[in-house]
Amino acid sequence: MTAISKRCAGMQASPIRKLVPLANAAKAQGTTVYHLNIGQPDIPTPDGYWSALKDSLPEVLAYGPSQGLPVLREAISTYYSRSDIPIDADEIIITTGGSEAVFFAFMTTCDHGDEVICFEPFYTNYNGFATMAGVKLVPVTSSVENGFHLPEAVEIESKITDKTKAILICSPNNPTGTVFSPGELQTLSSIVQKHDLFLLSDEVYRDFIFDGGSHLSTLELPEIEDRVVVMDSISKRFSSCGARLGNMISRNKSVMAAALKLGQARLCPPTMAQYGAAWIYHNLADNYYKDVLATYQSRRDLLMEELSDVEGVFFLKPEGAFYATIKLPVKNADKFASWMLTDFQLDGETTMVAPAAGFYATPGLGLDQIRIAFVLSEEKMRKSLCILKEGLKVYKETVE
Amino acid sequence: MTAISKRCAGMQASPIRKLVPLANAAKAQGTTVYHLNIGQPDIPTPDGYWSALKDSLPEVLAYGPSQGLPVLREAISTYYSRSDIPIDADEIIITTGGSEAVFFAFMTTCDHGDEVICFEPFYTNYNGFATMAGVKLVPVTSSVENGFHLPEAVEIESKITDKTKAILICSPNNPTGTVFSPGELQTLSSIVQKHDLFLLSDEVYRDFIFDGGSHLSTLELPEIEDRVVVMDSISKRFSSCGARLGNMISRNKSVMAAALKLGQARLCPPTMAQYGAAWIYHNLADNYYKDVLATYQSRRDLLMEELSDVEGVFFLKPEGAFYATIKLPVKNADKFASWMLTDFQLDGETTMVAPAAGFYATPGLGLDQIRIAFVLSEEKMRKSLCILKEGLKVYKETVE
Repeated sequence: MTAISKRCAGMQASPIRKLVPLANAAKAQGTTVYHLNIGQPDIPTPDGYWSALKDSLPEVLAYGPSQGLPVLREAISTYYSRSDIPIDADEIIITTGGSEAVFFAFMTTCDHGDEVICFEPFYTNYNGFATMAGVKLVPVTSSVENGFHLPEAVEIESKITDKTKAILICSPNNPTGTVFSPGELQTLSSIVQKHDLFLLSDEVYRDFIFDGGSHLSTLELPEIEDRVVVMDSISKRFSSCGARLGNMISRNKSVMAAALKLGQARLCPPTMAQYGAAWIYHNLADNYYKDVLATYQSRRDLLMEELSDVEGVFFLKPEGAFYATIKLPVKNADKFASWMLTDFQLDGETTMVAPAAGFYATPGLGLDQIRIAFVLSEEKMRKSLCILKEGLKVYKETVE
Repeated sequence: MTAISKRCAGMQASPIRKLVPLANAAKAQGTTVYHLNIGQPDIPTPDGYWSALKDSLPEVLAYGPSQGLPVLREAISTYYSRSDIPIDADEIIITTGGSEAVFFAFMTTCDHGDEVICFEPFYTNYNGFATMAGVKLVPVTSSVENGFHLPEAVEIESKITDKTKAILICSPNNPTGTVFSPGELQTLSSIVQKHDLFLLSDEVYRDFIFDGGSHLSTLELPEIEDRVVVMDSISKRFSSCGARLGNMISRNKSVMAAALKLGQARLCPPTMAQYGAAWIYHNLADNYYKDVLATYQSRRDLLMEELSDVEGVFFLKPEGAFYATIKLPVKNADKFASWMLTDFQLDGETTMVAPAAGFYATPGLGLDQIRIAFVLSEEKMRKSLCILKEGLKVYKETVE
């Protein structure tokens, strides 16, 4: 029998997904499972998304432009202009989710065998797109002790080889909630200039910055405007993950021309969702963004209140997004997360978290860490965190 | 300035798209342009698609399963069972368009640098996915003289190297309208068994077979059931190109497991469209398929009536899909197609066709051929073909 490709055979299955059967088994036995493990927001999708969609039903659901509908690209341009970031509609290509934006960013900037430096822990799906694009992700380890902020420049530069084509960042960060400071972005700017690299910047959480902070986009670094490729998405911003709409932005015309060629091969992003997205980009007022941000910030505060004083638990206050990567007083968080689903419940309820080892590329790192996504209501957050704390106590006493 | 990837720099832009500015210029001058150049059906998308979608609006537009919604996978399984093809819902993964199915088929069966044999002329976007997957397409030339049917086995086998992992076919064919006979599929079956290859089969036009014929799917070849990967789509079947929904089918469990890992990286296909698609798969009666087929067959007959007797024009009657690749009495069909847009009109109208050279991988082939898609109403088809004939006459007299 002819074998499947080595590259696919060697791909890791999602580190979260392997816990899913355990969660399903728990549910089948009547246990309520609180999902702190996945970045699926619970915020309602804006009504206007649905009404715009219903108002746009065509007779023939035809292909749209490969670059995306002009009305949506213009709406995104307007969205950025509100942050005083001038982006021309032609510097934007609509992608099928932020996912495709990551793939296009790798494909347009790297050849097969090229290397991209990234900071671990990182969003695991970068691995999948790196495999698809034949790119090697070279990790620089960041540390829970300083809130996963940027490692020293010299450490980053030590990983640069003649195969390195780009540095990949995500700020606000999934899975850590870290927001890079202007100074950190400046360091990165210097490095990419010095070593002639691209800076690939995943900014899908840019509207979620806590404590009154604001986002400095890599699009606001004029000295590297030809080197920056931004990956963006409506999934989290507008709680519309299932729409599969994202976009890639660059002022580098060669990058955009290359992305368009990739875009033409796959014909177009989903047509109808673009009408909904254009409407919400155009019409949602500041209130919407403020309310959503306040919701996530309250939950972040609740997380701090519940977990920051637990013995052996360590993490710094997340600055943005809706994640925290948390060190637990356990040897193996994967085992603990499984045990929570198979062996523990409190009044018929348990909590599912994501073991953080899967977010590290270096084997053996993050074994005692978990990622929590604060995407549940405050009431559910509080319950699920109490269960987590109680589980941790019992686990320490009876298992480890 | 750091350069974009060589693979993207080397990608061809779409051969049709480069004529688009010429068509736009003609329209700007008030000329009506009939589009016989693109496979965008004019058949209305079924009403049920829209009502199912409107009936399914959720509060939160969430990620769906990476494999696709069970309701849609089961609906597709039922669709195949109507043709007596037993396909389990787990042998189906929903993809973002047939496009992603092609990409997944390449990725799961081939490593970077591997080769896939295909028959030219072929759907140009295979080139884009081959570039993305780092796969080399090795063309075997088929001929307009025998209606683009399968070349001799010995010719196909002469292209097989130790890098060859698969043979890629499309039947009914885009861009030729050719349908491979059971005997031709048997030849391919023998070759893939003898040389231990996969058979990647694009069957998106399987419902469009003329003159009472029926489709023999590669899924009906039990001796190679582990080698077959089918790529399918709702785009043409249900005139819903903009939904971006397709699927990949294989009875090879390793291939499906690999595809699911790729699917998990990109999270999920568009959620809402899957409700619409499930409805139409479940509910459209035989009438729907018969009516659509009859529409395309009438247009095919009209094409034969208008073009088959024109001096110097040669093509065999298309057996399926809604395309014909046609030899014209011109030296350079690309130049002719451009000229039709820039220099010719009849009563303020002109016709746009696709030069066929772009469908060939071997340079210099197909220069005197065009592809016509019969996706316009009979009235428009007739007008546009009259314009084409008249244009051809004038072009021969005044240009070549």
